[in-house]
Amino acid sequence: MPEFRQNVATKEWVIIATERARRPEDFVGKSRVLTHTKPQHVANCPFCPGNEKLTPEPFLVTSGADGKWKIRVIPNKFAALSSTATDERRNTQLAKRMDGFGFHDVIVESPLHNSTLALAEPVDVGAVLQSFNGRAAQVVKDTRIQQIIMFKNHGESAGTSLEHPHCQMISLPIVPNNIRTRLEEAMRYYDDHGACVYCDIISNEPDFEKRVIMRNEKFVAFIPFAAFSPFHTWIVPHVHRPLFTQIDEGELAALAQILKQTLQKLYVGLNDPDYNISIRMAPLTYDRIPWFHWYLSIVPRLTKTAGFEMGSGMYINSALPESSAAFLRGVRTP
Amino acid sequence: MPEFRQNVATKEWVIIATERARRPEDFVGKSRVLTHTKPQHVANCPFCPGNEKLTPEPFLVTSGADGKWKIRVIPNKFAALSSTATDERRNTQLAKRMDGFGFHDVIVESPLHNSTLALAEPVDVGAVLQSFNGRAAQVVKDTRIQQIIMFKNHGESAGTSLEHPHCQMISLPIVPNNIRTRLEEAMRYYDDHGACVYCDIISNEPDFEKRVIMRNEKFVAFIPFAAFSPFHTWIVPHVHRPLFTQIDEGELAALAQILKQTLQKLYVGLNDPDYNISIRMAPLTYDRIPWFHWYLSIVPRLTKTAGFEMGSGMYINSALPESSAAFLRGVRTP
Repeated sequence: MPEFRQNVATKEWVIIATERARRPEDFVGKSRVLTHTKPQHVANCPFCPGNEKLTPEPFLVTSGADGKWKIRVIPNKFAALSSTATDERRNTQLAKRMDGFGFHDVIVESPLHNSTLALAEPVDVGAVLQSFNGRAAQVVKDTRIQQIIMFKNHGESAGTSLEHPHCQMISLPIVPNNIRTRLEEAMRYYDDHGACVYCDIISNEPDFEKRVIMRNEKFVAFIPFAAFSPFHTWIVPHVHRPLFTQIDEGELAALAQILKQTLQKLYVGLNDPDYNISIRMAPLTYDRIPWFHWYLSIVPRLTKTAGFEMGSGMYINSALPESSAAFLRGVRTP
Repeated sequence: MPEFRQNVATKEWVIIATERARRPEDFVGKSRVLTHTKPQHVANCPFCPGNEKLTPEPFLVTSGADGKWKIRVIPNKFAALSSTATDERRNTQLAKRMDGFGFHDVIVESPLHNSTLALAEPVDVGAVLQSFNGRAAQVVKDTRIQQIIMFKNHGESAGTSLEHPHCQMISLPIVPNNIRTRLEEAMRYYDDHGACVYCDIISNEPDFEKRVIMRNEKFVAFIPFAAFSPFHTWIVPHVHRPLFTQIDEGELAALAQILKQTLQKLYVGLNDPDYNISIRMAPLTYDRIPWFHWYLSIVPRLTKTAGFEMGSGMYINSALPESSAAFLRGVRTP
């Protein structure tokens, strides 16, 4: 029997369509070229070593013991926002607009064209995560920035146009509506129950263990009760902090470890699916609110959205969260 | 220079990325097999004549002068919801769920496998639109139904798995969160300005004509000021009604005409793009509210969503709405 489930943190309903539910095995990508079997170096790739002149000057460079770069943080050459625009609003009753001020940066994760976080060393995954915060520390000096969106697109159906492994970060002078409504819902939950809804989910949700993929001492990786798509995964820290930029060193290392292992389970279990990662956090000035808690979300791109999703804002998930989590728990990683 | 624009009806921000903006011509699909050049009949298609036994008994059938069916409204064989479930809610503080009660129906638009609304006669498009309401009249007898979502997926990247032209309709016992927040924003606008925001947009928005694709006596088709993706189109009726099911006969004929012509402009101008259509309307019991106004939305699937959209709920639109509208105005349709 199908079931409606509501995400208590966002109040969004999903349909878990168990009648049409596919077994976890049905989502395994067939005949894919696995990322790690691609070439290590591609002559015309703008992110491969030797082509550094094809990209703008870096904001940050992390180097290895051999003096060569390991990670480069650069401005996006095809930025969606301009760092030289003003943030002036020009509002009339029916037309609200603002110049496209903001920062749009790229983190080149590795000199190797075919590296992938799923198979990288945890310490290297940690260095990528650290680069987000290194760049964020520069960005927040501009007090016009209200919200930072950190994300990664892996594979063509996840919207990437460049194969070389990279993350992106967009820094906005506005707070997106979607984040406003999440803050409001979380505040309402806090009013009703005197607790952060994210803290409560990972501590008190009924049958939570059935949805857990793995844990370490600082984080839990799980399929949310109301996951909106198959294998939609959250990685949530035990320590309540509104912003990812507030993470400490020990947590960063623990996040690198659990992220790498979760991605590796997806890589092995589903045959290197395309996916998006995004880091959800509060607006920068909300760094002390007790009701919002940063987390990392992974969305494997295994299905397509269609007219129902566009017309309703709801999703139909054809995989049962508990089955997907059990499947991933069972995937052995070396 | 890029620009932020806010949809005044939903308060959603988009980035119009004019730096990376592509010319309208850049979205023209190359080397596509146009729908109307596909075969008229496919032996193993469950929606083609002769295979009626492969689908469940129809709720409604429209026949031509020759006595053969022209449109069939049938239950979806792979329904996301069950008409025999209860609508009982089972709530705990952290897990809100409900049995998956609802209706999930399919409208087979034509006996011809290769017909397409863009090239159909307006009277036939009208008959398809009328079928939504014919089925809705049956569905609303069940007073547990709160919200109807009417939609169409055209082409594989729009999420369709069956090529034969069809629409779908999902009838829900809940009001999706996305529709709740739209109602709230529209009510707030009504409080502030004493008018329906949708009525105001089509009557008073500055520079509105620059975004108009076409008009007839009852409707206007245009690219919204804050369109979230290239060629995202709204068709809005001049007469304020909260529900599509309240449309009258003259309006239905006018909608069929403008919808067909708008789709034909997309077909000719962009080479038969994949697209989703959805009809946005109020919950069924909100049939007299003065602040919400039904409309039809067309979203050509020309770009992919990625981690930024997932992490922020915002979209980056690489086409300027005014240029897209001018392009479509200039597309000649026979």
